[in-house]
Amino acid sequence: MRRRRREILQAAARLMEESGYHAVSMQAVADQADISVGLIYTYFGNKEDLLRAVIVDILQDFQERVPAAIENAGTNPIDRLFRGFQEFCRVIDAKLDATVLAYRESQTLDVEGRRQLMELEIQTAAPIKQAVVDGITQGVFRDVDPDLVTHNIALIAHGWALKHWNLAARFDVDQYIEREFELLLAAILPATTTGA
Amino acid sequence: MRRRRREILQAAARLMEESGYHAVSMQAVADQADISVGLIYTYFGNKEDLLRAVIVDILQDFQERVPAAIENAGTNPIDRLFRGFQEFCRVIDAKLDATVLAYRESQTLDVEGRRQLMELEIQTAAPIKQAVVDGITQGVFRDVDPDLVTHNIALIAHGWALKHWNLAARFDVDQYIEREFELLLAAILPATTTGA
Repeated sequence: MRRRRREILQAAARLMEESGYHAVSMQAVADQADISVGLIYTYFGNKEDLLRAVIVDILQDFQERVPAAIENAGTNPIDRLFRGFQEFCRVIDAKLDATVLAYRESQTLDVEGRRQLMELEIQTAAPIKQAVVDGITQGVFRDVDPDLVTHNIALIAHGWALKHWNLAARFDVDQYIEREFELLLAAILPATTTGA
Repeated sequence: MRRRRREILQAAARLMEESGYHAVSMQAVADQADISVGLIYTYFGNKEDLLRAVIVDILQDFQERVPAAIENAGTNPIDRLFRGFQEFCRVIDAKLDATVLAYRESQTLDVEGRRQLMELEIQTAAPIKQAVVDGITQGVFRDVDPDLVTHNIALIAHGWALKHWNLAARFDVDQYIEREFELLLAAILPATTTGA
């Protein structure tokens, strides 16, 4: 049942990303997922529910995977931030369609849906922010603005999906993570400890 | 006539950003711009033309304003990059609705329209990239990847619009520019010349 739900979400993300939310019917999602349209309605009450579920699904991936990755990274703040950033990017790489859709169609949701998403987006970024704060507290990072650095990390991770048409010709996701992290680290390490 | 055109684009950007492209009629744009719907059709053949014009309009602002700002900044690579980044952000700040719309609705355009936009987006970023390349050539910046740094600069500038709901409570656009540029510079200056 969980697998079936995931297949529906994947089909919906792909179709909505390709053609836009309004052009996609529940029937088209059913065809793409190779199930009956009646079955979709047992999972999602209507198309807006389905859209919201696609977006919430990727935010839940962040919530499950990013804190676990940071915890498993040990105590070094640089390792912890690296693993958090890496996992953030990998979640996005696994769901490029859903990430782009979250930017494109969040306005399609009603006010309450949008409010929930904003709340969830802030929660999702919290473990990354905590890794930055810990690094500052321990004197490993400069006294940077943790909210601004977290905002940049999220943008750069999202950028892998948003600008995939341009980036994919040059990097795979792990090369992107490695090179972006090098720049990020240079920005937040004290000047004397950065290698030229 | 140019002013009238601008008013139509502004009205379209606002309405489409608020309600989504599909929910907005040409009549609603006419009402918002306080002109007759017939007059809109003398400027734009249909709603897709209007959407494309909104997006192209902001890309043209970049093309006109960013290279001029860089040229007026003198010869110091840091000053040139700062002014380019600053102007990029200010163009966005003046057209927040259009920036968000460009992300949200570019998929609504046909294949040819999308291709044009991608082309224009790469051209738009070219003066920023050149400023980075010049700084590297002169040994002022580290040997960073200029395409990747340009990608980050564009994302962070776009981020002012995309995450405005979160940022505007903390910064005005000039504070955002100043703080982001400090981080950017720390990332690309050689370690020995950055101040902690």
